Amino acid sequence: MDKVYTHATLATLSDTVTQDYGLISDAALGIDQGKISWIGQASEVASLGVSQDCIIDVAHKLITPGLIDCHTHLVFGGNRAKEFEMRLTGVSYEDIARQGGGINATVSATRAATEDHLFLTASRYLKTLIQEGVTSIEIKSGYGLDTETEKKMLRVATRLRNTFPINVKRTFLGAHAIPPEFKNNADGYITYVTEQTLPELVRHDLVDHVDIFCENIAFDLNHAEQLFEAATHYGLSVKMHAGQLSDMSGPSLVGKYRGLSADHLEYLSEACVATMAEKGVTAVLLPGAFYTLRETQKPPIELLRKYKVPIAIASDFNPGSSPLCSLRMMMNMACTLFQLTPQEALTGVTRHAACAFGRNDLGVLEVGKKADLVVWDATHPAELSYQFRTHQVLERHFA
Amino acid sequence: MDKVYTHATLATLSDTVTQDYGLISDAALGIDQGKISWIGQASEVASLGVSQDCIIDVAHKLITPGLIDCHTHLVFGGNRAKEFEMRLTGVSYEDIARQGGGINATVSATRAATEDHLFLTASRYLKTLIQEGVTSIEIKSGYGLDTETEKKMLRVATRLRNTFPINVKRTFLGAHAIPPEFKNNADGYITYVTEQTLPELVRHDLVDHVDIFCENIAFDLNHAEQLFEAATHYGLSVKMHAGQLSDMSGPSLVGKYRGLSADHLEYLSEACVATMAEKGVTAVLLPGAFYTLRETQKPPIELLRKYKVPIAIASDFNPGSSPLCSLRMMMNMACTLFQLTPQEALTGVTRHAACAFGRNDLGVLEVGKKADLVVWDATHPAELSYQFRTHQVLERHFA
Ligand SMILES: [Zn+2]
Ligand SMILES: [Zn+2]
Repeated sequence: MDKVYTHATLATLSDTVTQDYGLISDAALGIDQGKISWIGQASEVASLGVSQDCIIDVAHKLITPGLIDCHTHLVFGGNRAKEFEMRLTGVSYEDIARQGGGINATVSATRAATEDHLFLTASRYLKTLIQEGVTSIEIKSGYGLDTETEKKMLRVATRLRNTFPINVKRTFLGAHAIPPEFKNNADGYITYVTEQTLPELVRHDLVDHVDIFCENIAFDLNHAEQLFEAATHYGLSVKMHAGQLSDMSGPSLVGKYRGLSADHLEYLSEACVATMAEKGVTAVLLPGAFYTLRETQKPPIELLRKYKVPIAIASDFNPGSSPLCSLRMMMNMACTLFQLTPQEALTGVTRHAACAFGRNDLGVLEVGKKADLVVWDATHPAELSYQFRTHQVLERHFA
Repeated sequence: MDKVYTHATLATLSDTVTQDYGLISDAALGIDQGKISWIGQASEVASLGVSQDCIIDVAHKLITPGLIDCHTHLVFGGNRAKEFEMRLTGVSYEDIARQGGGINATVSATRAATEDHLFLTASRYLKTLIQEGVTSIEIKSGYGLDTETEKKMLRVATRLRNTFPINVKRTFLGAHAIPPEFKNNADGYITYVTEQTLPELVRHDLVDHVDIFCENIAFDLNHAEQLFEAATHYGLSVKMHAGQLSDMSGPSLVGKYRGLSADHLEYLSEACVATMAEKGVTAVLLPGAFYTLRETQKPPIELLRKYKVPIAIASDFNPGSSPLCSLRMMMNMACTLFQLTPQEALTGVTRHAACAFGRNDLGVLEVGKKADLVVWDATHPAELSYQFRTHQVLERHFA
């Protein structure tokens, strides 16, 4: 073995049915060639015959899988601080939009920004998340809304993947909003996205997943179906921004395409929940957007529990509706705003987030999985959701 | 001059009437012997005749006064993660209390903890706040509820003051709750606090301010008056936890004693607001507790504005109702939950927080004030309230 952590409290998240958090006390975990090769009791370590130099005694600190932020819009130009301020000084959404605010402001700034500049600002955000214990991150495009800028954003995501010790999945969200060039022509834009942008991204190996924002104010299920057909053709997994403002049954469509996740889900019918459970679609909840937009309609947590839909939690970090660059704060918000338990919150940023992220070798501490884990200055996993800006990362193993 | 920051965007907070944030662009600020000795335009720096070694070009980054967290319970034993978890798994407050939970759990843990241990954990929290740009912090006692433990807590606060580069005010909050030793005997306990604990703290120079928690479930205004009389006798300034659960007109009593602040204030009458304005009592709002307790009654922001009561914002960091160790998050919450403007939020953690903190040489960038400031990786002060875990501290000058 290359390394053994011993005298650890392991929150394996492996079997949370018989044991809270899959907790093992006074445990040890061995790593070989980047994978977890052995899990046992600290008392067994001596008999493993491992060199003392490889043994790290963590003095009963907590070890969890590395955190996974499975829904972010990390790459964008500019910021919307002025707009945040205008809203609080009483300027209406309409007036802000008329002045070029909202998502259009970010699209303009992202189109205008150089690739290096986008990389630099995204790097800063990414370092903040890494410092918090995040070892995997999904990054969406969607502020270009033209082929060149969408490519630029996904090149930045790729460069982040190649630069930092973090797993990255790159999601094409060309269908985020309708760009000015296609005003009142959602059909035309979806055809452009599907037939021009997506093939180009595939050609340059810039995309892992495909996402769409389905709402009354954006794209409908026909658009989603057109896009998902193309994604499936290219062997890409799909996901959807659904149910943030209204119930359009989008999650069922994700189920039809065996997609990874439906995200937001404040408005979600029991029929959709049942389909998600049946088709293995993860529910990604985004409490940061709920908080920032002062929403009152909560996702149907009881229904998700009843049907055993995996619940993931993500930051949705973006310049408009969730300018909170912290997955740890989202764990607290999931508990405080949505009444999730701390175990559900931790599972939501590890085991279940791995499903939405599209990697089954992450998110749990089990033999054979990636040795992707965090040693925390904490002794019980509930502490990670309870307090904020405390219980920091002591060490991080990224395989 | 010892040092000159140039090409800065200064949010002076000095005159926010004629200029948002008291903003000066392309400005420079000179420091001499720990004080701000000169403020002018970057173009004037050459004519000052200052050595090049002393000039720091901050490339149009934002400089603000150091942040002041004017209401914290930073020193405590244990944590209440298990209780946080129990509540979310459906255990009632009553059952938690019956199992020794709530504030009693923290009192027991604080009494049992060694002074070194309390210092170690509080140091960790304090470093987190310092890293966020906090240069002044108020620290309350109130988890001892006996003379020895209250002394121990305030010795820890004193040691923090002597160890870290931060201004500390130590507030005696013996009247935080009624300890088991005085069950059903609030009168007896207040007499003990007033006649035994307080004189002992004064004798050992362990106290700067005196605070009391006035609510139906705790102490009443007669208790406060008894305590405030003693505090005034010793020349200490007073403050009050008031209006978190009910309106008991506590802030008016603070006014009568020319106290520094009334804190919480979700329940606050117009008459009290008028008295606060007249007597110069600062309103300290605590959005972290509002958020954590899922309250719905907001402080009367419009009334506070109408009467021009200075509004401060603090973390209220504590193990129960506000386990959020972040003043930056409070700025965001003040805007998002209380609809304060970003300028009010920043003023609330600088200029107005200085009033509640009891120091008139902090909180603004003006000639003659302490050179206590932060250089941010930001260009506009609204960014500090808008985004979270971004726009970090580049440099911190603590005089
Ligand atoms: Zn999103
Ligand atoms: Zn308090």
